[in-house]
Amino acid sequence: MNNVKRIEIVLESVHDDTVVRMIRQAGIDGFTMLRGVAGSGNRGGRDADGLTDVFQNVCFIIAAEADACDRLLEMLRPLLNESGGMCLVSDAKWLKH
Amino acid sequence: MNNVKRIEIVLESVHDDTVVRMIRQAGIDGFTMLRGVAGSGNRGGRDADGLTDVFQNVCFIIAAEADACDRLLEMLRPLLNESGGMCLVSDAKWLKH
Amino acid sequence: MNNVKRIEIVLESVHDDTVVRMIRQAGIDGFTMLRGVAGSGNRGGRDADGLTDVFQNVCFIIAAEADACDRLLEMLRPLLNESGGMCLVSDAKWLKH
Repeated sequence: MNNVKRIEIVLESVHDDTVVRMIRQAGIDGFTMLRGVAGSGNRGGRDADGLTDVFQNVCFIIAAEADACDRLLEMLRPLLNESGGMCLVSDAKWLKH
Repeated sequence: MNNVKRIEIVLESVHDDTVVRMIRQAGIDGFTMLRGVAGSGNRGGRDADGLTDVFQNVCFIIAAEADACDRLLEMLRPLLNESGGMCLVSDAKWLKH
Repeated sequence: MNNVKRIEIVLESVHDDTVVRMIRQAGIDGFTMLRGVAGSGNRGGRDADGLTDVFQNVCFIIAAEADACDRLLEMLRPLLNESGGMCLVSDAKWLKH
């Protein structure tokens, strides 16, 4: 099994094409995307009851080598700075096949 | 990047408001929620073929400091004890922006 | 909390029953499944614009002891070899309840 970085990005779905472009520019050739994700963060996303489901978000799950991960994070940082959202990175093993 | 705990909770969707309340009480100001999640566990969730999709579950993904994580887990434990469900905690890095 | 392996499998949804069978054969008694997952990988999954959503995938999230994890990975490897897909394994803590 290969050591990889697991990158998880949640942001408003209006930015999904931008993130796909960044993934490809970072040299990463595969990703998983979950649509219809609800979220609440410090930028808003609450309805009258203080609860959720106001924004439609998308969640990307990406496995990448450390170098490609760094390239993606550098591109993501200004986007998340402007639009909010979450990006978590953790260590994982990729089952080679 | 900040060290955080990544908390993943899967439980029946009837409990989603309770979990949102616990997240806020723990002092965590953001989370991601996936609806329409299928699951099967040792409490049931199997149809006549022994397969899945019987219960509609919800999956929360939360990033929190270690202290806030501990507070949330203490609140979650009795709920999961009563209702079943899964809670996984792992180490992650949060991309600051 | 118990040390477990968190296994995340993304593959075409036509294989979901096969994966459920493998999970049970490995002696794992619970799992979470997300449907309607979009993906793009080096086996295809791109439309005319080079973007995504061509394949309907399913994402499994599984927590297992190390031994059961190894048994599942051995069964999964030939399936992923033939059909493509992604399998990531990471360390996590399971909240006992």
